[in-house]
Amino acid sequence: ITTKLPAVGTTIFTVMSALAAEKNAVNLGQGFPDFHCDPKLLEDVTAAMAAGHNQYPPMPGIPALRDAIAAKISALYGHSYNAGTEITVTAGATQAIITAILAIVRPGDEVIVLEPCYDSYVPNIDLAGGSVVRVPLVPGTFRPDFDKIAAAMSPRTRAIIINTPHNPSATVWTEAEMRKLEELLAPTDVFVIADEVYEHMVFDDARHESVARFPGLAARSFIVSSFGKTYHVTGWKVGYVAAPAPLMAEFRKVHQFNVFTVNTPMQHALAQYMAEPKPYLELPAFYQRKRDLFAAGLAEKTRFKLLRSEGSYFQCVDISAVSDLSEADFCLWLTREIGVAAIPLSAFYGNGFDQRVVRFCFAKKDETLVAALDRLAKL
Amino acid sequence: ITTKLPAVGTTIFTVMSALAAEKNAVNLGQGFPDFHCDPKLLEDVTAAMAAGHNQYPPMPGIPALRDAIAAKISALYGHSYNAGTEITVTAGATQAIITAILAIVRPGDEVIVLEPCYDSYVPNIDLAGGSVVRVPLVPGTFRPDFDKIAAAMSPRTRAIIINTPHNPSATVWTEAEMRKLEELLAPTDVFVIADEVYEHMVFDDARHESVARFPGLAARSFIVSSFGKTYHVTGWKVGYVAAPAPLMAEFRKVHQFNVFTVNTPMQHALAQYMAEPKPYLELPAFYQRKRDLFAAGLAEKTRFKLLRSEGSYFQCVDISAVSDLSEADFCLWLTREIGVAAIPLSAFYGNGFDQRVVRFCFAKKDETLVAALDRLAKL
Ligand SMILES: CSCCC(=O)C(=O)O
Ligand SMILES: CSCCC(=O)C(=O)O
Repeated sequence: ITTKLPAVGTTIFTVMSALAAEKNAVNLGQGFPDFHCDPKLLEDVTAAMAAGHNQYPPMPGIPALRDAIAAKISALYGHSYNAGTEITVTAGATQAIITAILAIVRPGDEVIVLEPCYDSYVPNIDLAGGSVVRVPLVPGTFRPDFDKIAAAMSPRTRAIIINTPHNPSATVWTEAEMRKLEELLAPTDVFVIADEVYEHMVFDDARHESVARFPGLAARSFIVSSFGKTYHVTGWKVGYVAAPAPLMAEFRKVHQFNVFTVNTPMQHALAQYMAEPKPYLELPAFYQRKRDLFAAGLAEKTRFKLLRSEGSYFQCVDISAVSDLSEADFCLWLTREIGVAAIPLSAFYGNGFDQRVVRFCFAKKDETLVAALDRLAKL
Repeated sequence: ITTKLPAVGTTIFTVMSALAAEKNAVNLGQGFPDFHCDPKLLEDVTAAMAAGHNQYPPMPGIPALRDAIAAKISALYGHSYNAGTEITVTAGATQAIITAILAIVRPGDEVIVLEPCYDSYVPNIDLAGGSVVRVPLVPGTFRPDFDKIAAAMSPRTRAIIINTPHNPSATVWTEAEMRKLEELLAPTDVFVIADEVYEHMVFDDARHESVARFPGLAARSFIVSSFGKTYHVTGWKVGYVAAPAPLMAEFRKVHQFNVFTVNTPMQHALAQYMAEPKPYLELPAFYQRKRDLFAAGLAEKTRFKLLRSEGSYFQCVDISAVSDLSEADFCLWLTREIGVAAIPLSAFYGNGFDQRVVRFCFAKKDETLVAALDRLAKL
């Protein structure tokens, strides 16, 4: 069988996690926590199952969870979504993104992605029959370059995918950058898919600039977020999308014929758990402490040059002073020989662009981070 | 925004369930049980969560569950799939089907569907850019018509979707029919997507003729099944696909960028629970008793003409002697005025073909079926 996705292998996250397990390496590659979620959340699932919530939920998600999501977005970003027609619960953020793409991208349409970017976007666009238009973020700083984005736009541009806080670079878009995007798109019909899965992980003086804060963007955007990231349950595969009703109507047409619905007991538990905002309000401080612990250790014990992590749970480092290997070979070597797994930034570029930067995930127990630092000190 | 799916509204199952809830009708429309699953299964989820199984599982599913699935298929249908490369756990059967279609159907390819058919197939093919070729099952008996299927085939035929036990007609393909399909496809490269979600619900002397039993079919097929149907947990959204390694490799390329992975604690619980075959081995007798109770009641209390339910958890009836309304209007009327929801077969046809047949789901508590029969007696 000739493949429809010739450029696609097994995702780098799966490859590196498998190698890390095989080599007994500390896995700072694939982004997931190695600590437990709040036991309260697990009790809520058990209670939901015992209450008999094990059959199909309503197609767009249970009303209580959609209400809680709309209330959160309104409280944090000041934009009111109608929980009935503008919020849909998804089987994780990845499923949300492909569904949005399948819903709006027609064969021949162009979709702008800003590289480096998450590895599902491009194959998703390919499957919809769209053309991928790659625009690099500024090398070194990973800031959006609006002249380049403007130059990439054409009458066939259907959508742009943005991601803030940014995976892998850990940058966070500023209010000024969001305004520039809003202005640039104002005269167009271009849709925005805003991957905001790290929305609750922003550090220092940064603020998460959700597209929901900008009326000119909100009106054309699908906002995608993830309960897995926010509540430390990446394996539950529950996320959501918010979008204006006409866009959401198209989204749901595809959603109902992609997964139809999302795990019922988990939805009930999440609805219950969201009633209390504390867990996500405390998340920035929780992860900032981990970032600081890890970054201080790297600065002290290694010759890596640290890039600033403004948000997400990733820390990027420049490996030039440490190794001459390519990013990818360095990550393999680091996993095998030093016992710490990382992800090469080249995996986030279509052409494998190598800028000597690799990504570590610090969503780990302090002892895991310390163990990784001890190993990295050998470099 | 102009829609990519102009023929698609909200799925009939969602519409009828919402109306049933609003009218306080007994819901025999959408297919899901109103009784509880085995409490043991819920305990297994709670135990899996407590053991910390809440982060990303391996992309194709946890090994223990894939092993259990391969062992079941081998025991029941005599075909050995490699659990490492030929089984993938999916977010329900619907997601399995769209993923298989996106993986193999290229723009311009033709895909044969046998009408009446489940309402996701056609929009799934549309999203892949394929052309739908509709072949009717024999009116009245709903048997496959191999002359018509042969006539529908062309050099551009990429795949055929079959479904046995069949939703909505409740027919079960015979060994002879499967052999005919095998012969028909032998000289071709046509793939088969075999929707076998009701595999454990076959009655009387029927046997489930999985494509896995027929080497010439197994070699070209994606088999799709559903834990939600088998274990009475439709809201968990866990299913699986089995396919030869080269097909599965293509499937996984799409799967990893559609949902990436499937709920971890549910996977662990299902792996545990599958160790004991009794629950699915006892399922035919469990549902045959319900079918008999419901069918006997209909025969005694109504003037519906019953079609034979050979498998699945559906009972179809001809409404001609009872009403002059269209199937769809009859179902709306029945829900509103009599208080019993059903599904019109016209919803399973692209052109809304009306043959005066509606579908009831008997996956309900005996008391629910009795309550529905009492209401239907008023007809
Ligand atoms: C979906 S697997 C990878 C998790 C993740 O978002 C990342 O590591 O970038
Ligand atoms: C996915 S909703 C409908 C359930 C079902 O398979 C049916 O009722 O036909």
